[in-house]
Amino acid sequence: MVSVTSLFAPVESDLQVLVENLKNLVGAKHPILYAAAEHLFGAGGKRIRPAIVLLLARAVSTGTDILPQHRRLAEITEMIHTASLVHDDVVDESDVRRGVPTVHSSFGNRVAVLAGDFLFAQSSWYLANLDNLTVVKLLSEVIMDLAEGEIQQGLNRFDTDLTLEAYLDKSYYKTASLIANSAKSVGVLSGLPNHQLDNLYAYGRSLGLAFQIVDDILDFTGSSEVLGKPAGSDLKSGNLTAPVLFALQEKPYLRGLIEREFAEASDFEQALDLIHQSEGIAKSRELANQQVQQAIACLEDLPASESQKALVELGNYVLRRVY
Amino acid sequence: MVSVTSLFAPVESDLQVLVENLKNLVGAKHPILYAAAEHLFGAGGKRIRPAIVLLLARAVSTGTDILPQHRRLAEITEMIHTASLVHDDVVDESDVRRGVPTVHSSFGNRVAVLAGDFLFAQSSWYLANLDNLTVVKLLSEVIMDLAEGEIQQGLNRFDTDLTLEAYLDKSYYKTASLIANSAKSVGVLSGLPNHQLDNLYAYGRSLGLAFQIVDDILDFTGSSEVLGKPAGSDLKSGNLTAPVLFALQEKPYLRGLIEREFAEASDFEQALDLIHQSEGIAKSRELANQQVQQAIACLEDLPASESQKALVELGNYVLRRVY
Repeated sequence: MVSVTSLFAPVESDLQVLVENLKNLVGAKHPILYAAAEHLFGAGGKRIRPAIVLLLARAVSTGTDILPQHRRLAEITEMIHTASLVHDDVVDESDVRRGVPTVHSSFGNRVAVLAGDFLFAQSSWYLANLDNLTVVKLLSEVIMDLAEGEIQQGLNRFDTDLTLEAYLDKSYYKTASLIANSAKSVGVLSGLPNHQLDNLYAYGRSLGLAFQIVDDILDFTGSSEVLGKPAGSDLKSGNLTAPVLFALQEKPYLRGLIEREFAEASDFEQALDLIHQSEGIAKSRELANQQVQQAIACLEDLPASESQKALVELGNYVLRRVY
Repeated sequence: MVSVTSLFAPVESDLQVLVENLKNLVGAKHPILYAAAEHLFGAGGKRIRPAIVLLLARAVSTGTDILPQHRRLAEITEMIHTASLVHDDVVDESDVRRGVPTVHSSFGNRVAVLAGDFLFAQSSWYLANLDNLTVVKLLSEVIMDLAEGEIQQGLNRFDTDLTLEAYLDKSYYKTASLIANSAKSVGVLSGLPNHQLDNLYAYGRSLGLAFQIVDDILDFTGSSEVLGKPAGSDLKSGNLTAPVLFALQEKPYLRGLIEREFAEASDFEQALDLIHQSEGIAKSRELANQQVQQAIACLEDLPASESQKALVELGNYVLRRVY
């Protein structure tokens, strides 16, 4: 299976510069944040969000180099994403993310809250200094969506009446909004016409939703080693994702187990079994597949290029993780 | 002694609308944040920052009503301030602020981090939708300064080599930047020429520094009842403010007590005594007085009005708290 980083070959050197910039940005001035910065932007992160921005920027900039503002937008995207992860880990009291201890568990709540605030603040400032009010609006919408998504996730814990629609809304807020709005911003910075902006947004939205659905499937099908956390972690914490919502339609007994928050000894294992026996995972795969096909269709209008090809492949790569 | 709220008479009805708007904004959509919103924007807050914005807006809008954008700016100012307080309380692990339990102690870190993020996010979004790139830049600078100030305060704990200049820088970041940049933004929204914008900024900067110095004096001279926290709290946590820095110039013995972080039983009481015996408090008063006089001088160019008078009085009010 092709690795995701090999898909990023057309923007590999841009991504390396970006990582160094981000480390220096957070770490250089403040020793207290230096270790956190190394931790946040060191090896391990896939940098999917800035890679998408840079690939899209190359794909729409035929015959010319990408704009400095595109590179800055890619940095902002990764800063916003990282800030939200750091605060989510405080809120969710997560000790491990992708097998690596979180900032809050390594450095305490104090540094985690500060590091997240500093990154949000830096991203707002860089954003303002892109000198493009439309992009400021698009990305400030994202920051609001991220807070909204985290709040909704908290409110809906163990709520078996959660609809698939509400799940997709939350997934948009938590994951797809950033990708959709930064994709659209690439086009805004290049001065593209509205119908192309809509296409970029739709690509990011569908790809982002597919990412989230696939992550949610992997929570059930991945090994704890690959996930870097125990399988079924989302379910255990009451975060009901696509496989669970589909399984609930088939397996009425599952509802009770979730509603009593796995109070009895074998409740959680029983719930996992019921989900695996159901069509929940297959139906979730089909949902992710639909989103990927929609995403790829949005790329048809882009001129053929190595970057355009990588963006199509990225969609297929996402799907292959669960097929 | 005249109360600060009576100074706000010219904008009293505006302030009441503002408080209701803020409560609804945070609370209406999210039950989880409703209690926190009541707590944050309920009785108790003096709303000094939005009052300054509204008074300045009235003072520069002679003969016409203030702009809707001015009201929105006042809300944004209070949202940013409140968000930073909520996160500071998490970072500093404070249980009480102005005699009232903090959000993090009442509702836990989870709600406190979320509520702060939600407020920062909302303020960024409202900011972008003021449709004025200059104001976006000024206020995003503030959000960065607030993070910077909190980080510096953390780095400088128990550092007896801290200079008065570094203390004033930190006070600018933590307190004056918001007032200065929102004061300037009032003028930007009204389309005032640059020299008037500079004056508004200088007024806010000096008034903000005076606020901070006076607060830092009150930490030593106020009763715990008035402060809503034990006297000397800042010193105890290693936050070295103007009275301490001046006292250190006279009382070499104080240095050792601070450097060993009050490790011995009577160290902290001895330190408080040394500060009270020194000229530290008197010199800090003089520093605050200079800032207030500079602030008031910046108001001379404004046309005479009830609001202009209230802004001058606000400076005098700040000083009277420690004279």
